[in-house]
Amino acid sequence: MKGFKFAGISAGIKKNNQLDLGLIFSESESTSAALFTKNQVVAAPVIVFRDKIKSGICQAVLVNSGNANCFTGEQGIEDVKESVCLLSSELGISDELVFVSSTGVIGEPLPMDKVRASISRLVVQLSEDGCENFARSILTTDTCTKVVTEQIQIQNKNIAITGIAKGSGMIRPDMATMLAYICTDIEIAQDDLNQVLVKVNEKSFNRISVDGDTSTNDTLLALANGTSGVIVSSKKDLELFETGLSSVCTQLAEAIVKDGEGANKLVRISVSGALSAKEAYQACEAIAHSNLVKTAIYGEDPNWGRITAAAGRSGAKVDQNKMDLCFDGHFLVKKGKWLGKEAEQKAAQIMKQKTITIELNLNMGDFSDYYLFCDFSEDYVKINADYRT
Amino acid sequence: MKGFKFAGISAGIKKNNQLDLGLIFSESESTSAALFTKNQVVAAPVIVFRDKIKSGICQAVLVNSGNANCFTGEQGIEDVKESVCLLSSELGISDELVFVSSTGVIGEPLPMDKVRASISRLVVQLSEDGCENFARSILTTDTCTKVVTEQIQIQNKNIAITGIAKGSGMIRPDMATMLAYICTDIEIAQDDLNQVLVKVNEKSFNRISVDGDTSTNDTLLALANGTSGVIVSSKKDLELFETGLSSVCTQLAEAIVKDGEGANKLVRISVSGALSAKEAYQACEAIAHSNLVKTAIYGEDPNWGRITAAAGRSGAKVDQNKMDLCFDGHFLVKKGKWLGKEAEQKAAQIMKQKTITIELNLNMGDFSDYYLFCDFSEDYVKINADYRT
Repeated sequence: MKGFKFAGISAGIKKNNQLDLGLIFSESESTSAALFTKNQVVAAPVIVFRDKIKSGICQAVLVNSGNANCFTGEQGIEDVKESVCLLSSELGISDELVFVSSTGVIGEPLPMDKVRASISRLVVQLSEDGCENFARSILTTDTCTKVVTEQIQIQNKNIAITGIAKGSGMIRPDMATMLAYICTDIEIAQDDLNQVLVKVNEKSFNRISVDGDTSTNDTLLALANGTSGVIVSSKKDLELFETGLSSVCTQLAEAIVKDGEGANKLVRISVSGALSAKEAYQACEAIAHSNLVKTAIYGEDPNWGRITAAAGRSGAKVDQNKMDLCFDGHFLVKKGKWLGKEAEQKAAQIMKQKTITIELNLNMGDFSDYYLFCDFSEDYVKINADYRT
Repeated sequence: MKGFKFAGISAGIKKNNQLDLGLIFSESESTSAALFTKNQVVAAPVIVFRDKIKSGICQAVLVNSGNANCFTGEQGIEDVKESVCLLSSELGISDELVFVSSTGVIGEPLPMDKVRASISRLVVQLSEDGCENFARSILTTDTCTKVVTEQIQIQNKNIAITGIAKGSGMIRPDMATMLAYICTDIEIAQDDLNQVLVKVNEKSFNRISVDGDTSTNDTLLALANGTSGVIVSSKKDLELFETGLSSVCTQLAEAIVKDGEGANKLVRISVSGALSAKEAYQACEAIAHSNLVKTAIYGEDPNWGRITAAAGRSGAKVDQNKMDLCFDGHFLVKKGKWLGKEAEQKAAQIMKQKTITIELNLNMGDFSDYYLFCDFSEDYVKINADYRT
């Protein structure tokens, strides 16, 4: 994309020469907006930047994986500040224009010797084609990079939105996924950028879960550098941009769940007929986080008793004699009545798919919501039992 | 115990001739009180008996495993009623004196032909020594029976309290465990029995979790048949009884977590220094249900970052710079500061134990609470992926 360069190198923070230090650089100062985790235990970069980002201007983003720089006290904050100085001086820009993120193990000091030794090498690697390397350098237990680009037309001109994300475990964003960066070449006021970001985030990253644990490092950062010459400020243009951004964020959010630790299936639970928006959300959320539902999906078992039982404990008002339940449009339960062995066999076939839609109609009211989640396999347990060894 | 008989037989509801139909019979009418699941999706016996138990009198308890008789509509209710009639007529007592419970797979019709063919054989088996058979007949994925007896002195006489429970998965009681029965030979008013039961339950069964899923069948039933001749009604006697009952219920609750599906470790999380009782509970509950904490414990990894991060998202007010964290009394974090490799190695040693106490002091206020939970292993996933096959 015009005006953005990327890089990703191995600084030795992770083992086996894996890429672990990444950089996004915009040729001009970018309008920026960011959302952060709502966890009260937060990483040092989140402490520093949730205030600093209010300036609304950013030009460079430094990200390391392999270490979350979280629960690292005063030293962690100092390490963020030193990283900012090292990079700004190497790039010849003001300190105020540098943003930093970290992801990885919580509670260990950031190995600053490795960061110091790598900054100039990282800057040298910057290129317009560096996006894949950057995307790789921010991964932890992810098995693949997550990059989505949309080209859309605003004012009859092409503009681009690229999103790069990482996330596979400790995923129940209460704001954003662990780390996601949006680069676009539009020009936009910071308030507008922030408003669109909040809105899009709510129905993309805030509707996914791998394991129900909200990260300490969640960050969603958007940079708009204006190089396309398109100024987005009218209601119509803002809506066009929102549609494009929503497409990027939704695809990234899906990609994170698909690549959930140990995941084999991507499941969309839709709950309709709830008495309120809150109750629709509660029912989705309880089902998406039920370990019994998630293990049944792993076992390719359409165990609808576990789904309806999760809805029953969710806090949403339900009547078991009113519930309808569908797997990919095929009814298994109607008005609380199981439709029998044949319907069950059809549902069992659907469970073999990689992507499954489950629809639960509570038939109580008019509100609906959805949530994306994945199955729960032995591999999730293995990955997380051995994570620090 | 005086005046109670038990039986457990195989009716063919479960596979491989496992015991699956159990009976408790009191020689005289017993004062009774019961608590039920707060899940809104409930089994047919819960629908029938949560009203009926208000009569406060019971003499016989019929329990089947292998089928939850839940989400079985009108037929499920009819099956409960028929079971009551079959048993009352075989025992020669009034319908009003029979209580029924079920546990097992949700959503399949109860095989009444097997129940009908087995009732008289079950009654013949009743004996004072039948408790172990009864305890075995109510199990599902449990690997062992759970029976606890306490003899205590009230009014200088010996009285006995026996508790029999089952539960291994779908355990996050929001009232009681899946099924627990208390038999005692004291005489007590129903209101008193109910009050003591509610109080004891809150700090025993309501403080345990295996997997965060509240069952549709949770039932805790207490029967007091008065055969000891001891009438418990004074404040002092009620307190003595409460202490004894609390001991029985706490041991049963612990036994359920120890026998949690796939569990290898029993963990007690104590949170102190919270700003309110609610916040102390929230922090305990978030930690006890974090899959990342549970898999780390399975991996014998004292991954304190996951514990503090779970507290941070729990809803309790926390300040990461104030937290103290101990494993079995050994500090790993003090005032938010990690105490280093040596402390970590000590904690890693403690993690190898079968029973672990984790204490988190938020140092914000004066409230504390606790929760019992287990680790999360590949076996949990296997058990629940294959449960219906």
